[in-house]
Amino acid sequence: MLVDCWAAMAAKESLRPFQYEPQELAPWEVEISITHCGICHSDLHLIDNDWGMSSYPLVPGHEIIGTVSALGADVKGLRMGQRVGVGWQRGACLQCDYCERGEENLCLQAVPTCVGGYGGFATRLRVHNHFVFSIPDSLDSATAAPLLCGGVTVFTPLRAFGVTPVMKVGVIGIGGLGHLALQFSRAFGCEVTAFSSTPAKEQEARQFGAQHFVVTSDASAMAKAALSLDFLYATTSVGMDWNALFNLLRPKGKVCVLGGAPVPITVSPFPLVLGQRTICGSPVGGRAAMTEMLDFAARHGIKAKVEVMPMSAANAAIARVAANQARYRMVLVN
Amino acid sequence: MLVDCWAAMAAKESLRPFQYEPQELAPWEVEISITHCGICHSDLHLIDNDWGMSSYPLVPGHEIIGTVSALGADVKGLRMGQRVGVGWQRGACLQCDYCERGEENLCLQAVPTCVGGYGGFATRLRVHNHFVFSIPDSLDSATAAPLLCGGVTVFTPLRAFGVTPVMKVGVIGIGGLGHLALQFSRAFGCEVTAFSSTPAKEQEARQFGAQHFVVTSDASAMAKAALSLDFLYATTSVGMDWNALFNLLRPKGKVCVLGGAPVPITVSPFPLVLGQRTICGSPVGGRAAMTEMLDFAARHGIKAKVEVMPMSAANAAIARVAANQARYRMVLVN
Repeated sequence: MLVDCWAAMAAKESLRPFQYEPQELAPWEVEISITHCGICHSDLHLIDNDWGMSSYPLVPGHEIIGTVSALGADVKGLRMGQRVGVGWQRGACLQCDYCERGEENLCLQAVPTCVGGYGGFATRLRVHNHFVFSIPDSLDSATAAPLLCGGVTVFTPLRAFGVTPVMKVGVIGIGGLGHLALQFSRAFGCEVTAFSSTPAKEQEARQFGAQHFVVTSDASAMAKAALSLDFLYATTSVGMDWNALFNLLRPKGKVCVLGGAPVPITVSPFPLVLGQRTICGSPVGGRAAMTEMLDFAARHGIKAKVEVMPMSAANAAIARVAANQARYRMVLVN
Repeated sequence: MLVDCWAAMAAKESLRPFQYEPQELAPWEVEISITHCGICHSDLHLIDNDWGMSSYPLVPGHEIIGTVSALGADVKGLRMGQRVGVGWQRGACLQCDYCERGEENLCLQAVPTCVGGYGGFATRLRVHNHFVFSIPDSLDSATAAPLLCGGVTVFTPLRAFGVTPVMKVGVIGIGGLGHLALQFSRAFGCEVTAFSSTPAKEQEARQFGAQHFVVTSDASAMAKAALSLDFLYATTSVGMDWNALFNLLRPKGKVCVLGGAPVPITVSPFPLVLGQRTICGSPVGGRAAMTEMLDFAARHGIKAKVEVMPMSAANAAIARVAANQARYRMVLVN
């Protein structure tokens, strides 16, 4: 049975309807009947081939939720009709030490869901069961779909870089990732400050969990925030004054880069060396982080703030992301 | 009684004999009769006022070993005649959370030994007892003096950044810091690779503990070392191709900058983000690290390789450091 989907036929093109015949279901594969798929900024990078790794037709979509509609013969622990999700990743070697530790996102043979295969802007998806995650009952599909990529991307650094509840966390850039970072770090028990160039985002930032809100163009507010943070999410690397960000960090503080924009980072060694500070980065999350994140989100009622549109409006939804108008994540539904 | 010392009377000048009358011994102070003092590259930066924080007359020297010649009334745990050392730091607030954890090196009020006070190119030094360390009996004074700054500077990151014995450690720049980093990381149980622009250093690097030696200009050897390291010491930030260094790191790998040269660091965000890699820095070490480091050095027989010269030859010794001729640390003796 053909899969109906939306695909870019070449770089930077609008999506159009496309059909493909899936390969026979492998013993380790799960078929998912897709109900929801979030739009991540990286879908736009893939459509535009910004990273030089896209192939066409390209079916975007890697914040996928749906129900199990077929199970390969060897798949354990999943059942027909179960609500499940798939994120950025569909493959890895499953043998290296990263895979062994549930950090498949760091495997050198990691395979993205939408590269070398078709993604979630579709009616169905067949994927290795290792990259299929059960969705806790208390999570709503529309607001949980963005957790599969955006959520795990902000959750993973909390665990990987030793953030603890006694720490003070900043989030710079209150968008798709940032509004989730505020929620996760607040639920983590941290004191949370939102940094944004947009004063109008203050009220929502506080609803997401920020106890403090700083407008990045307000020099006196930025000066007051100096030396206050243990951990700072930089949800983009575009247009950042890295030395100014370092001023926000206490000694031992860490700034964590999440964005995939190809803009070099330039810093002075002094704040790094003198304050034992760190600049680090993190990509999505492996199986261990994904499982923890979904459980944590369910327990703490964390949900993306989404705008829902029908799958047939994929191009209009993408345009809202491209124009930075999504508040805060677009989700397509079948 | 006057203290005889060697001082720069202005930036970039040679040292000349200088005398000062010490203030009355405070109840918390210890007077040390100095026998040995190492020369650290940062002494040259201070003499030249490269960091804009020097005051003159400037008496360099912060790798100090000697014996206790006077004890303030309130000093506990030290005795007359005991062999002790002092490093980069002579003061801190002793009240902040960093000080409380023995990380006085990160205190925002940290006071360097040679800034706002006179250093160790001298016959005597009066200093707060909190920054005086007992030297284990098995350590020789000449080869231990450089541990007080160089040693603790390479030891601290092993502890601060979670290096464990199963890890693979690289050291780039086999000089004063690098030859100690090889020893400490090998004694830590790690697999150790030395990276140097100087092929002639191979034999000594292996004696210091390197199991592998890579000439940094050898592109094929560098390519073979790609993705091999969990932790990489960058003992300088001058002239580094940071993206090439990142190529040496495995996912989750960290590069740690130790140098104080005012040269910006520029990196692409991709290896940072995709591989969850880290660039960090570290300055000397606090009381906790210093105590651990001295005990660890004594147990493992770690010693600086030094060239010993009389204190009166301070200028000639400094010239050897400036010309990058010291193998691997100059130590002045009274």
